[in-house]
Amino acid sequence: MARQFVCSKNEPVVQTKAGKLRGFIQDGTYTFHGIKYADAKRFQAPEPVEPWDGVKDALSYGFVCPLLHQDTPSGEVMIPHRYWPFDENCQYLNVWTQSVDPKAKKPVLVWLHGGGFAAGSSIEHVAYDGENMSKYGDVVVVSINHRLNILGYLDLSSFGEKYRNSGNAGNDDMVAALQWIHDNIENFGGDPENVTLFGQSGGGMKVWALMQTPAADGLFHKGIVQSGVIDGFVPEKKVDGTKIVNALLAELGLKEAEELEGVPYSILAEAYNKVSPALEKAGEYVGNTPIPNEFYMGDPRVVGFTEHARTIPLMVGTVFGEFSFGPAIAAKASMPEEKKLELLKKKYGENTERFLRLFRAAYPQKDITDLLFVDTLFRAPTKDFIEKASHNSAPVYSYLFTYEFPYDGGHVAWHCAEIPYTFHNTDKVPVCNEPGVSDRLEEQVFGAWVNFAKYGDPGHAALPQWPASKPGDEAVMLFDRVCELKHNFDHNLVDAVYAVAPRFGEEEPEAPIQH
Amino acid sequence: MARQFVCSKNEPVVQTKAGKLRGFIQDGTYTFHGIKYADAKRFQAPEPVEPWDGVKDALSYGFVCPLLHQDTPSGEVMIPHRYWPFDENCQYLNVWTQSVDPKAKKPVLVWLHGGGFAAGSSIEHVAYDGENMSKYGDVVVVSINHRLNILGYLDLSSFGEKYRNSGNAGNDDMVAALQWIHDNIENFGGDPENVTLFGQSGGGMKVWALMQTPAADGLFHKGIVQSGVIDGFVPEKKVDGTKIVNALLAELGLKEAEELEGVPYSILAEAYNKVSPALEKAGEYVGNTPIPNEFYMGDPRVVGFTEHARTIPLMVGTVFGEFSFGPAIAAKASMPEEKKLELLKKKYGENTERFLRLFRAAYPQKDITDLLFVDTLFRAPTKDFIEKASHNSAPVYSYLFTYEFPYDGGHVAWHCAEIPYTFHNTDKVPVCNEPGVSDRLEEQVFGAWVNFAKYGDPGHAALPQWPASKPGDEAVMLFDRVCELKHNFDHNLVDAVYAVAPRFGEEEPEAPIQH
Repeated sequence: MARQFVCSKNEPVVQTKAGKLRGFIQDGTYTFHGIKYADAKRFQAPEPVEPWDGVKDALSYGFVCPLLHQDTPSGEVMIPHRYWPFDENCQYLNVWTQSVDPKAKKPVLVWLHGGGFAAGSSIEHVAYDGENMSKYGDVVVVSINHRLNILGYLDLSSFGEKYRNSGNAGNDDMVAALQWIHDNIENFGGDPENVTLFGQSGGGMKVWALMQTPAADGLFHKGIVQSGVIDGFVPEKKVDGTKIVNALLAELGLKEAEELEGVPYSILAEAYNKVSPALEKAGEYVGNTPIPNEFYMGDPRVVGFTEHARTIPLMVGTVFGEFSFGPAIAAKASMPEEKKLELLKKKYGENTERFLRLFRAAYPQKDITDLLFVDTLFRAPTKDFIEKASHNSAPVYSYLFTYEFPYDGGHVAWHCAEIPYTFHNTDKVPVCNEPGVSDRLEEQVFGAWVNFAKYGDPGHAALPQWPASKPGDEAVMLFDRVCELKHNFDHNLVDAVYAVAPRFGEEEPEAPIQH
Repeated sequence: MARQFVCSKNEPVVQTKAGKLRGFIQDGTYTFHGIKYADAKRFQAPEPVEPWDGVKDALSYGFVCPLLHQDTPSGEVMIPHRYWPFDENCQYLNVWTQSVDPKAKKPVLVWLHGGGFAAGSSIEHVAYDGENMSKYGDVVVVSINHRLNILGYLDLSSFGEKYRNSGNAGNDDMVAALQWIHDNIENFGGDPENVTLFGQSGGGMKVWALMQTPAADGLFHKGIVQSGVIDGFVPEKKVDGTKIVNALLAELGLKEAEELEGVPYSILAEAYNKVSPALEKAGEYVGNTPIPNEFYMGDPRVVGFTEHARTIPLMVGTVFGEFSFGPAIAAKASMPEEKKLELLKKKYGENTERFLRLFRAAYPQKDITDLLFVDTLFRAPTKDFIEKASHNSAPVYSYLFTYEFPYDGGHVAWHCAEIPYTFHNTDKVPVCNEPGVSDRLEEQVFGAWVNFAKYGDPGHAALPQWPASKPGDEAVMLFDRVCELKHNFDHNLVDAVYAVAPRFGEEEPEAPIQH
């Protein structure tokens, strides 16, 4: 059925600090794509955009920050992507809202995309579209692009005062976006005093990194960290930024760091890709993540939460399988127990029986072959994060997305698999559709995200009681065919498996799975 | 509501000549993305893919041919795009079907994308998705990527036998895709003896170019040319391919044309972009379109239709505004007549009154300011094409999409504007939604496309009688709020305006429109 489309000279036009913007309305949802929230010179701090006269169109998504490597399309049935033209002039955001009345003051959700700090965009996944979340949740949704990889995170602070925060330029862009939201979102029907950050993977890391960023204090009020806590990703201490910069200068035949400002990005990226692997292997800092300095206080699990961060209500969780993207055990429903044990022993050797006992205790309903795919790389640091956050004054809510997908004979949830549910976008992602199951699960997940944004508490009528976690008591909401609230239910399993599991960046032992 | 998703080890798996492929099913629509239909060395003819054992996934769209220039996102509300990773190893196609029963023998529609012969992809527009067309039309839909620009259309024939058809390599890829369809589509429920090509802009040119390509004879049976006839785009005679190649070699400091095979594409493209403008300005051939040779017989309006081409039923048309993408006259509903005349005189000068008389005769219902935007660049050569095709043994049906969009105060149809209607994809393109109007128009347009593919006749119950055009009698179906069949209704207008209009590539006089 045709929906009502409105995009005329005067409607919808919204006044921002810098000038007027025109978006479009579809069946009541106001949409603004590609709003420029800041400008920046390469490696330097973002600045407010120049004001303009008249009305600018906000009808096309903005440029995405260029990446270091092109993606090779694969696994699209699990995570459908959208790619977009690149330009380092990439400080754009998108807004979906149900009202442009400054008195409406709806809760604001700000999506920080994943892809570490080196890749991705505000529209990279089909599931990132904000229309449904705004419509079904009656909230304002904002998603942002910002500088990535060496454009966003290369520490040139030793090479000049103007570069003093270049190691966090990407996060500085995010602060500029939050400032734009603070200054303008009222005219898009949003409440600048109720802003919730949510993000997955690198996006989750961005949430906690911004909690540790004094410049962002007061610009947001709650945070949702989805699969965004992992060991060994973001530097815990001050870094030496000179080595990678000197290697780049040598590779490019340049003398002054300032000359890097003028090198075409494709050449800069090529040089970086050439010189960085050796440094990285030697354990040196090579950019691509935020670094602790006077702008960013550091990982809260290492340096503690800042005083302000302790006041931020949190929802934090992971999914069952995370990096288990590979083929499932297609025949698990009919596979004899001994064959399953054989597969488990091939992966876990002498630990098999112990792990299996712990797995059965944690997941009595799951097939034992799921133990092959259980994630601890995110789950172990996440439960540590939750334990630490539970000492804060603000509450922390824990979840684990354990739903098995109707794919490949039954596939554990992979990294990013929960995103379509959080955005109410399962209609856009075929693999998320299971009649009789997925609509209800979507309401349960989506309701939690929206209620957390509205009230700081994810509980709602379609879920069991969901208390905040307390020190020593992780109260985990399991999102599955039947949602359950459990306490410390998998700690023994996670600790045991994590103790022997390869860390991030290390090689997995050969997968024992034959499709 | 959740749909039924199926993608297991065995379902849906289809046997092709080269091996087995797995796709997915959603509510009965079988979908296969990114099927490799050929491989090719740079500048050389495509070859069949190597056979494989086991089952390959066809779950991710394949690489898109690299472009010469990056797009700058704009006008997305008019034409929403999808971009995708690039690689010259780009011979991929996609299939949507309602059955994988070899006995089903459903009509097959093959989409040839636009973007001249230099840009675009099988998924470039959101509206190119084939699911709805397959579902609502009960047909098999195929869309294909192929080589573009200098990878697909650079004539190196003077430099070696292996390059003899490099000037048509992109079209040769299409023939390979049609051969793949001929050999395999039965196992996807399609009828290899009822294949209809349809394409818009460059895609429309591809349709008539393949009609003039003996290697494709018998591989397709009908053609739909949407806004795909224009003067001065595809060379009419044999070209001299040596100048652009020698310029490239000089720019790159190379001696032998064969060395061009090894140059990274980005460097090749940069060199081409540097040397080609001067040659192009001098009227020299610089690649980017098919060229007449023993593979491609040449423009049917110049050399005549081949004997086989005369047997191909055609549907051919344009849209009202074509390249009129700019702002509409937002206030035209309330603008005084004298002000309108002033705008018209600014554009058409002393011709204004004559043009206006002809416009009112052709379009009695339209606002006279629409005359500012009426297309003749496509329409004039298209009616010439239809006149010439009307002498063939097979029928030719003419249409013109004159619907005014509910955008910007009422916007004439722009180049590509009809595509969402032909694919039954108006649900994916907000600007195509007008309650009470667009659903019916979609059924009218879509029904014509599907019926033409099924029966070689676009007529159906929701449209007025639609005869084929005859010599001297163009019977045009006007797709609009009310669909009408008219005869030679705009010829005087089109001839008059085309006589003074700038040709393709020439500058439009300054637009008189103030938004």
